[in-house]
Amino acid sequence: MNFIVETSARHVHVTQQDLETLLGKGAALTPKKDLSQPGQFACVERVDVVGPKKTISGVSILGPVRPATQIEVSLSDARTLGVVAPIRESGDINGSAGIKLVGPAGEVEVAQGLIAAKRHIHATPADAEKLGVKDKEIVKVRIQTAERSLVFEDVVVRVSEKFALAMHIDTDEANAAGASGEVYGEIVK
Amino acid sequence: MNFIVETSARHVHVTQQDLETLLGKGAALTPKKDLSQPGQFACVERVDVVGPKKTISGVSILGPVRPATQIEVSLSDARTLGVVAPIRESGDINGSAGIKLVGPAGEVEVAQGLIAAKRHIHATPADAEKLGVKDKEIVKVRIQTAERSLVFEDVVVRVSEKFALAMHIDTDEANAAGASGEVYGEIVK
Repeated sequence: MNFIVETSARHVHVTQQDLETLLGKGAALTPKKDLSQPGQFACVERVDVVGPKKTISGVSILGPVRPATQIEVSLSDARTLGVVAPIRESGDINGSAGIKLVGPAGEVEVAQGLIAAKRHIHATPADAEKLGVKDKEIVKVRIQTAERSLVFEDVVVRVSEKFALAMHIDTDEANAAGASGEVYGEIVK
Repeated sequence: MNFIVETSARHVHVTQQDLETLLGKGAALTPKKDLSQPGQFACVERVDVVGPKKTISGVSILGPVRPATQIEVSLSDARTLGVVAPIRESGDINGSAGIKLVGPAGEVEVAQGLIAAKRHIHATPADAEKLGVKDKEIVKVRIQTAERSLVFEDVVVRVSEKFALAMHIDTDEANAAGASGEVYGEIVK
């Protein structure tokens, strides 16, 4: 069974408090586009991510607001910014890199929260059963493209009723796979 | 048999004529560091690569001078610059992207020459025999790292007495493999 492989470009998740610091008191996120995972959306609002070496301007905020601010970048981005991004699952930000966010109304020094996302597959329990995998299982996924086919190892499966079946990779990984347009993956043994 | 996997950061090869336009009449390259391939070296001199969207400053020139100017970037870089880089073997630049180079003495509008390098293995005939591969053969290479192991397919083998055994990948590919420090690859079937 094949599944879609989506590329996550650099993005930011914010707390309500950080959102108000960045965008002004009482600020709310304005949904622009629904994402594949139910309830998740890209926002109109953008912020600058300011590293010790360089700034990456106009980075998308993804909604809804979360209990912790988290900045997901590629390792290419991290090098541009001048920080070391650990490879982590979303939400696992303890001891990850700090960074500065700058919005139109103010700035936030985030003490930790910058990560490179560990490549992963979102699946419902029914999807997982069809794929023959379990929550937290580490699998290998082959992606076939015209010029840069590859097999990603170290892909973590995440299973929840709240998910929709999709694999997420970052832009470095998408580029390494020559993935553009609609790309599909397949679990290999 | 394992072999070293080296990451090629963005770099420029120049003709003598373009070198003189960029750096001044009679300019010569100043070797800074020998590379793994015999006779190839990184230079002290750097140039800016100016795309329609953004500029990447201070890009290394690799020597010696060549019959054609060639700019090798990652697909992340190409996106930053605002150009489309085809995936090509070094030297195969017909119909590749144009770009502007800017040096301290002048600038060059390169009509074509910007590529993303096709991942490849340099091998001597003796290395190739030990590896059981031939010139131009397409192979799969597994790279094991702490967090992002993978198998690159579509790796081209290049055999010459002038080479030294090494695989070359770009920075996107290195990041996708979580490759830092000394990393080794192995051909898999």
